[in-house]
Amino acid sequence: MAGRGFTHEVPPIYNERIKMLRNGRWQMMTEPIHFDRPIAGVGLAASFAETWCRDNEGENIGLIPCAEGGSSIDDWSTDGILFRHAINEAKFAMEDSELAGVLWHQGESDSQDGKHKDYYEKISRIFNEIRKTLSASNIPFIIGGLGDYLGKVAFGAGCVEYQLINEELQKYAQNNENRYYVTAKGLIPNPDGIHIDAISQRIFGIRYYEAYLKKEHIYEPLANEKELVDKCHNRVNTSAEKKHIALEKFTLGKISFEELMKTFS
Amino acid sequence: MAGRGFTHEVPPIYNERIKMLRNGRWQMMTEPIHFDRPIAGVGLAASFAETWCRDNEGENIGLIPCAEGGSSIDDWSTDGILFRHAINEAKFAMEDSELAGVLWHQGESDSQDGKHKDYYEKISRIFNEIRKTLSASNIPFIIGGLGDYLGKVAFGAGCVEYQLINEELQKYAQNNENRYYVTAKGLIPNPDGIHIDAISQRIFGIRYYEAYLKKEHIYEPLANEKELVDKCHNRVNTSAEKKHIALEKFTLGKISFEELMKTFS
Repeated sequence: MAGRGFTHEVPPIYNERIKMLRNGRWQMMTEPIHFDRPIAGVGLAASFAETWCRDNEGENIGLIPCAEGGSSIDDWSTDGILFRHAINEAKFAMEDSELAGVLWHQGESDSQDGKHKDYYEKISRIFNEIRKTLSASNIPFIIGGLGDYLGKVAFGAGCVEYQLINEELQKYAQNNENRYYVTAKGLIPNPDGIHIDAISQRIFGIRYYEAYLKKEHIYEPLANEKELVDKCHNRVNTSAEKKHIALEKFTLGKISFEELMKTFS
Repeated sequence: MAGRGFTHEVPPIYNERIKMLRNGRWQMMTEPIHFDRPIAGVGLAASFAETWCRDNEGENIGLIPCAEGGSSIDDWSTDGILFRHAINEAKFAMEDSELAGVLWHQGESDSQDGKHKDYYEKISRIFNEIRKTLSASNIPFIIGGLGDYLGKVAFGAGCVEYQLINEELQKYAQNNENRYYVTAKGLIPNPDGIHIDAISQRIFGIRYYEAYLKKEHIYEPLANEKELVDKCHNRVNTSAEKKHIALEKFTLGKISFEELMKTFS
């Protein structure tokens, strides 16, 4: 779930209590969090983390980016590079942090040619190995479903078996402890017909958080999800965040040194 | 040398023979190559690689991003996270590739408070450990100097001892086999007074390549460096590159599906 929502379509989220991992170290989160491709954009992790912060005053949350756009379930086999690299990143994070869960979204690349048939077994092997390798015996996995806009246009047109993948994901979450399924019902794609758009990513992140918080499957859109997205976007930034934003703008040549200094005075 | 040149100030470089590492795997290079911060931009690696490609027809070059903006030499101590993370990235790259060199640019954060005094010893320890840990006993290190615009304005103003750091870098390169110094003379900064601007990064990359190719120190700007930058920018893209660029534009919503399909027909 690298995220391809267009950053210009939603207000940014800056929160000094939300960190992301870069070069093995924590820094304040900015989007794109995952930078697997130049087309990287808004994903579901930012609104997940922002909503988490409201319920966990005074605590920090860290995001470990390791998603790879366009990857199939076979690309994530436990002896492959993506899996081993993700484990390595998690180990750097765990040098000073506690692993609290995995946010998983994958399956478009497996939504054809009967690939759903051994999908359950493959995802099961991957998740078991994550827990084992990281000695995180009961961390929750939050598992998002695929959008019901698939199988229709542009790059999404080929994903004709997405419902069969969703069935496997649901079965897997239902049959195993501390795995929660999250519906993608009603989410809207980019013009490419495959990637979830920015505002829908915000909504999806809030559904993920609901599953994480309540420890239950989310089969229907939440009644208050749009209101919760607004809360993510309308939070007043702290002084540290304002300085961070001003520094970013100055370094990008968008404000003058004098304007920057005003923020710091 | 993460790179903070503004991407809108130079034409992009796309070359199917230049790869960069993401999530442990190779993909076609796009800038920013390093994505340590949301302010990441153009660095020196792209023009280095592009110029390398002209001399190495039919071969591929891979770039391993591991730079961290604003880092001091102490941040790179061999037991620290940045060093260990960079080594890990290199090991992923080396699963199917040969390590051919290290492009190094650091020192602004050490250009004050007498930090130059033990800089030689620190850089020496780091480079020795890279060779040892990666079993790459004689790989070249190309070591760029700091810009002569430092010590003057905005964020560069504090770098008052940059010349002393440059002396240490030169001494280190001169005293040790297969280390080459590259001058930053005449390069121009962004308005922040500290980061090299986009066109200067292109020039710097070409000087780095000259040092790499000739196995010698580069103490003066090259007579033909601007011409070589033009060559980087004016290369005609291959059919595969044109498709890659069109795919990027479509995914970003900048061209229609019909326009995309024309590229593929």
